[in-house]
Amino acid sequence: MNAEIIAVGTELLMGQITNTNAQYLSRRLADLGIRVLYHSVVGDNPQRLSDSLALALSRTDVVIMTGGLGPTRDDLTKETVAAAFGLPLILNEEVHGQIAAFFRKINRDMVESNAKQAYLPAGSTIIPNRNGTAPGCIIRKDGKIVALFPGPPKEMIPMFEDTLFPWFEQMTNQVLASRMLRVFGIGESMMEDKILDLIEAQSNPTIAPYVGDGDVVVRVTASARTRPEAEALLDPCVLAIGERLGDFIYTTDGTPMEEVVGHLLMMRNLKISVAESCTGGLIAAKLVNVSGISAVFERSYVVYADSAKKGELGVSATTLERYGAVSPETALEMAEGLQKKTGCDVAVAVTGIAGPEGGTPGKPVGLVYVAVKMQSGVVCREFRMNGNRERIRTVTALHALDMVRRTLLALPD
Amino acid sequence: MNAEIIAVGTELLMGQITNTNAQYLSRRLADLGIRVLYHSVVGDNPQRLSDSLALALSRTDVVIMTGGLGPTRDDLTKETVAAAFGLPLILNEEVHGQIAAFFRKINRDMVESNAKQAYLPAGSTIIPNRNGTAPGCIIRKDGKIVALFPGPPKEMIPMFEDTLFPWFEQMTNQVLASRMLRVFGIGESMMEDKILDLIEAQSNPTIAPYVGDGDVVVRVTASARTRPEAEALLDPCVLAIGERLGDFIYTTDGTPMEEVVGHLLMMRNLKISVAESCTGGLIAAKLVNVSGISAVFERSYVVYADSAKKGELGVSATTLERYGAVSPETALEMAEGLQKKTGCDVAVAVTGIAGPEGGTPGKPVGLVYVAVKMQSGVVCREFRMNGNRERIRTVTALHALDMVRRTLLALPD
Repeated sequence: MNAEIIAVGTELLMGQITNTNAQYLSRRLADLGIRVLYHSVVGDNPQRLSDSLALALSRTDVVIMTGGLGPTRDDLTKETVAAAFGLPLILNEEVHGQIAAFFRKINRDMVESNAKQAYLPAGSTIIPNRNGTAPGCIIRKDGKIVALFPGPPKEMIPMFEDTLFPWFEQMTNQVLASRMLRVFGIGESMMEDKILDLIEAQSNPTIAPYVGDGDVVVRVTASARTRPEAEALLDPCVLAIGERLGDFIYTTDGTPMEEVVGHLLMMRNLKISVAESCTGGLIAAKLVNVSGISAVFERSYVVYADSAKKGELGVSATTLERYGAVSPETALEMAEGLQKKTGCDVAVAVTGIAGPEGGTPGKPVGLVYVAVKMQSGVVCREFRMNGNRERIRTVTALHALDMVRRTLLALPD
Repeated sequence: MNAEIIAVGTELLMGQITNTNAQYLSRRLADLGIRVLYHSVVGDNPQRLSDSLALALSRTDVVIMTGGLGPTRDDLTKETVAAAFGLPLILNEEVHGQIAAFFRKINRDMVESNAKQAYLPAGSTIIPNRNGTAPGCIIRKDGKIVALFPGPPKEMIPMFEDTLFPWFEQMTNQVLASRMLRVFGIGESMMEDKILDLIEAQSNPTIAPYVGDGDVVVRVTASARTRPEAEALLDPCVLAIGERLGDFIYTTDGTPMEEVVGHLLMMRNLKISVAESCTGGLIAAKLVNVSGISAVFERSYVVYADSAKKGELGVSATTLERYGAVSPETALEMAEGLQKKTGCDVAVAVTGIAGPEGGTPGKPVGLVYVAVKMQSGVVCREFRMNGNRERIRTVTALHALDMVRRTLLALPD
């Protein structure tokens, strides 16, 4: 089967948002063995939308559309698709009730325009939306499959995973199993060099590397008639990649770094605390994303100013003067002070220059020190990163958590 | 003028990379007053590439293509475009010399396939490439303009800025000006109800609402011969929207909430500190994104456990027992304790249930209390949000910052 992904929205054509939905759907359709031949983006214009749909239906079997299901008059995707197939839009009482309940839950009045979202093409399969008011739907007609989703990825992704993905599995009578290896501490091109021959040699499972959020993801996908068969195909492939990439792989099931670290801490009942300067709370915010983390995470500190590093953590004025706030000496004293103050088992301290200002030739933007102190000893590492402020802070947070992981697992730094 | 952006590359259709080029080009073409009607992505397939180009030429005036200019046999963009216009590919000696020089510079041998990159469609304008071997080109024929760029953004972006942007500026006399209003505290559909008649009445400027990251964005865009004329068209329209949405609008130039609040604090020299429970450092992380914030932001606390709320901020055990950690009483004591401890002018405290666990019928997931304490007094608000953990925390952070904004500007809660 071939597919086209159509994203609807003038904000995409104005460059106000990136079309990440097309990337996500492409990846998952590839997992299903559905070949994506085209992406298109079209604005909130009925004629062009209608033309684009007709074109997509003429050249592919499956058309996935995202966006244009909102309550506003701009949102025309459903109306356009219904017209293309000659299907009336019918009020779905159940969906109407769900939308009303959604508004009660968030303490807002449901306005008339929201009722529009409860109308769906006759005979379509509803795709429920847990995270918003616009349901999606699947229309199957004239040998074609069209699926509609709202634009926000937070709504679209769970809807795709809960409903459309299993729907396709059932339809194609195949089962897909995949592993998501996440790799950190090695560049994407160097990683690809190490596994290129594996990527090229494989067809089932397939191996697809892509850029993650500061890390690299390698997706391994096998298809078979049954789940055990698909799983059995995966193992040797994952092991072969593991041989090449070793402990740069921090998970084989897609678990984010903070969860990997959080579970290590919880299993060993080790309390963690963080003192953050340039990351400004980002590491703590990642940790509290881990369900159950409260057992090992009670508190942490953002010590942005020198006065806070001194006052909260007892970093000495001499150290700050002599070596500067961005130095291994300061990072180490921060970690020590943090451990003394909180009695935590794992003290993490971060200080660095996230930019764009504040860099000097000796201490450029991207210079970061991370110290991790445990009973067994202390490690301090220097990093020199590039990219903008946001990227430097994201990667710093990953490095800090990875250092905790490596320390806990007794891996080399 | 209307435009289509075609990205060429199977890796895009496999979901291995995001099509950020389309977003970048869209934004810059909008600045030039060129209206982008379509984005397309097509693989390295000669027939589909040729069909896509023909379609684009049939429906727009300007076609910008990215990708497929590499040295390999897969790279067919130039050949396809030349064939479509009936233009021969001619060896450009100057470009050939530049490619050879580039290889000397990076200490690599120039292989035969690289010579292919020195062939360009007859009569085209060359777009030099400072950061790679593939030059781009501009072809003007039969009333159409086609520009070709290599795929890597670090090559494409400087080539666009150095050559194509000024080329278009000279050619067109249109200037586009826009304002980005950001709106918080009112739902997208309710907001649109309030300004629907304005949206419908306008053609220049245009008014386009879309969903932001926890907020709503309204983009107002005017086109004219000169920048002052375009700006003059914007003002009455922005004021009319302002009359309807009032202080729900927190900026008219796209500034993120944390910057709006950060600048208010800096202007008044008011020190802020934050005590975060469910947001776990997210508000602090937003604040340190603001350039210059160190003047008013020294430190903040993540007090995730009750013990931390007691130990760090002096929240009383009685309050925690009687009302619970998620209560207005606890939020208020957190803010008081924070102000006492740090001597800050603005103390922000957040406590809530971000889920997915921890909710009860009386205190469901999404229940959040935010307290803001200043010399002038203290405000505590209750919020009931929905969505997943991440969304609840994102919106909570926006609410907390918005409460600071409203307090500082003496706006109603």
